[in-house]
Amino acid sequence: MFTKVERIKKDLEELAKFNSSNEGGLTRFSLTREDKMARDYLKEQLSKLNVKVYEDNAGTLFARREGADSDAPVIMIGSHFDSVKNGGNFDGPAGVIMALEIFRTMEENNIETKYPIEFVAMIEEEGGRFGSGVFASRAMAGLVDYDQLERNKDKDGISMAQALRDFGFEPEKIAETKRNREDVKAFIELHIEQGPILENEGKDVGIVDFIVGINEFKVEVSGRPDHAGTTPMDMRADPLSVASKVVANIDSYPGPENNGTVATVGVLEVKPGAANIVPAQVVFTVDIRSKDESSIKNVKKKIMDELDRLTKDTDVTYTVTEMLDVKPVKMNEEMVSLFKESGEEKGISYRNMISGAGHDAMVMAAVTEVGLIFVPSKDGRSHCKEEWTDYDKLQKGIELIYDTILKLGEAK
Amino acid sequence: MFTKVERIKKDLEELAKFNSSNEGGLTRFSLTREDKMARDYLKEQLSKLNVKVYEDNAGTLFARREGADSDAPVIMIGSHFDSVKNGGNFDGPAGVIMALEIFRTMEENNIETKYPIEFVAMIEEEGGRFGSGVFASRAMAGLVDYDQLERNKDKDGISMAQALRDFGFEPEKIAETKRNREDVKAFIELHIEQGPILENEGKDVGIVDFIVGINEFKVEVSGRPDHAGTTPMDMRADPLSVASKVVANIDSYPGPENNGTVATVGVLEVKPGAANIVPAQVVFTVDIRSKDESSIKNVKKKIMDELDRLTKDTDVTYTVTEMLDVKPVKMNEEMVSLFKESGEEKGISYRNMISGAGHDAMVMAAVTEVGLIFVPSKDGRSHCKEEWTDYDKLQKGIELIYDTILKLGEAK
Repeated sequence: MFTKVERIKKDLEELAKFNSSNEGGLTRFSLTREDKMARDYLKEQLSKLNVKVYEDNAGTLFARREGADSDAPVIMIGSHFDSVKNGGNFDGPAGVIMALEIFRTMEENNIETKYPIEFVAMIEEEGGRFGSGVFASRAMAGLVDYDQLERNKDKDGISMAQALRDFGFEPEKIAETKRNREDVKAFIELHIEQGPILENEGKDVGIVDFIVGINEFKVEVSGRPDHAGTTPMDMRADPLSVASKVVANIDSYPGPENNGTVATVGVLEVKPGAANIVPAQVVFTVDIRSKDESSIKNVKKKIMDELDRLTKDTDVTYTVTEMLDVKPVKMNEEMVSLFKESGEEKGISYRNMISGAGHDAMVMAAVTEVGLIFVPSKDGRSHCKEEWTDYDKLQKGIELIYDTILKLGEAK
Repeated sequence: MFTKVERIKKDLEELAKFNSSNEGGLTRFSLTREDKMARDYLKEQLSKLNVKVYEDNAGTLFARREGADSDAPVIMIGSHFDSVKNGGNFDGPAGVIMALEIFRTMEENNIETKYPIEFVAMIEEEGGRFGSGVFASRAMAGLVDYDQLERNKDKDGISMAQALRDFGFEPEKIAETKRNREDVKAFIELHIEQGPILENEGKDVGIVDFIVGINEFKVEVSGRPDHAGTTPMDMRADPLSVASKVVANIDSYPGPENNGTVATVGVLEVKPGAANIVPAQVVFTVDIRSKDESSIKNVKKKIMDELDRLTKDTDVTYTVTEMLDVKPVKMNEEMVSLFKESGEEKGISYRNMISGAGHDAMVMAAVTEVGLIFVPSKDGRSHCKEEWTDYDKLQKGIELIYDTILKLGEAK
């Protein structure tokens, strides 16, 4: 392999030091002291290479490695370097260090490409500080305006506009961060899987061919609070009796759909919530994901049908509130083929994967052709201090992208 | 009828004024300013009658109407006059005013009984202030010691011992409040139904022949928190998937048992409780009530069998914690017969009932023979500001007890 695992390890360990958490895990929120230190570390590393470092007004750090044809559209590689609260060291930085290591390796090997390549290190992908995720990629897709920057505030009331200004950026010029389709040939991201599949199957990397669509909604089931001792079973209007029957069946709906369909009830609240009172109200959320929109609709319909059936001719009623509705994204087929070819040639084991989580790559699909590579997550864990990816596996993911970039960038 | 509905109405309306709530509903906690005012009102009414008023060191207000045989055991009649927070005007006071109105009616009609009769007005039945319900009757049953009075504290840290002392009682002498079986011939309580049955069937009163046993327990189901998007359905250890299936079936278990069996899940909590995280833990309570202990056991066994079946060979585990276990109480058969006889003679419609809630009468069963009469609750509601019983229905319940007391007390 051309890339160097020791460098990859050192970079990730250095970045892990820029952490505001005292409670275990990594907390690196956007546009904070820790962001500045991580950003400075990256700039210092990039300054040793023959690249042009710059930043846009969304706070994204870029480094451009010129191509033989400097007017040709650019190939972007990278990910984000912010974290959730008390998260891990790999979610985001793994993909940023991928880009850095590829630049180093290209320089060491005197690689010249036709297409310019850009290192991209983004912020606020998690929405941990300002509550507005995949921010930097949304800015590149032209989906952020100045009003949003004024509206999105952290818990201390500091707006994103103010925080950008304090970092020396010009939030008023946020519209200029938009990238045009004709100027960008591709965006390639590496990310940790955040699930157990690669580890379970002993694969080195996952080649993502779909990012799932997500439909998230809230169901409020209302009945009548009654005394648990004095109200006969047939005189009750118990919303938990209905909700539990609906929820009990949900895990059986994704199976027949395939397409990586999953459905989750993560929130269920009961009011008033006393052992001797029949509940008055139950609120639960449903999160359905699939690479196929019709599978999402099928699962949702089964849930709605059950709610209708179980509340018909009863005193129990329900309402549904839409929370999130994102369409599935198909990855570029040519890029998927190139990844597979590189996997075969380099002896890196892989499998096709559906990404069950949203990533910057999902948003960048609105700008250009995207590719997304997963590396294994130990025990499937992420967003916690136990988050881990073996460095040799991470290196294989980076090497796969390195090889693909040479082809896609038309290296001499 | 001998009793007077206008007096009953006025008494209840007067008592309703001694209320600390500004939020709607009645709040009258024990040993507070409102308790004192209600107590003074009752004492004033009793002072107009030929009775001896006294209090025991548990704060219970008594009034003794002497019998022809002053050594004969006493017949007690009454209930409690404390309330839950933001409760109603009838839960408790209805039974206290029953006793007051019976005393007035006996005096008006120059009734002399062989057995002495005692008016009883108890506190802290709801446990609203000190968290220790059916307190006064437990004291009469000899089930309260001084240590408990020191331990039971209100939310401001004032112990029940201190509160009793501030009212002029001597909590150190709590043991002396115990009543002996040979000194008490019977205890008769009137209470609102707190359920919908009498109203639904258009009956004037319910003659309680059983107070249910109660088994209450908490089930903690534990699994593994996973990302809702990246964890395939078959790799999850979802405790809500298990808990919802168990809860979904619970409402079907009481039916085949009969015996007034009911089962309720009133609390269900999900952790960590985010829409995009597979739950790590679910805690729910089960409250099972029946007049037949074996029915309680049968329902509980079905729940345990389901938990075993659904967690077998999975990564989901569960634990069960017992919270409450009270045996069913059978009412005195002779008293039930006397109630029915009076109902027939007076044209008061009735039905046999199982009390699904615990009452002071349940505790007094440890001391003497008990009788319990229910009056209808509008829409089955209680413990809320909508709590209501039509005064003419309440009067019928009081009249029924009046008639029974004359027989049981051997009026001349």
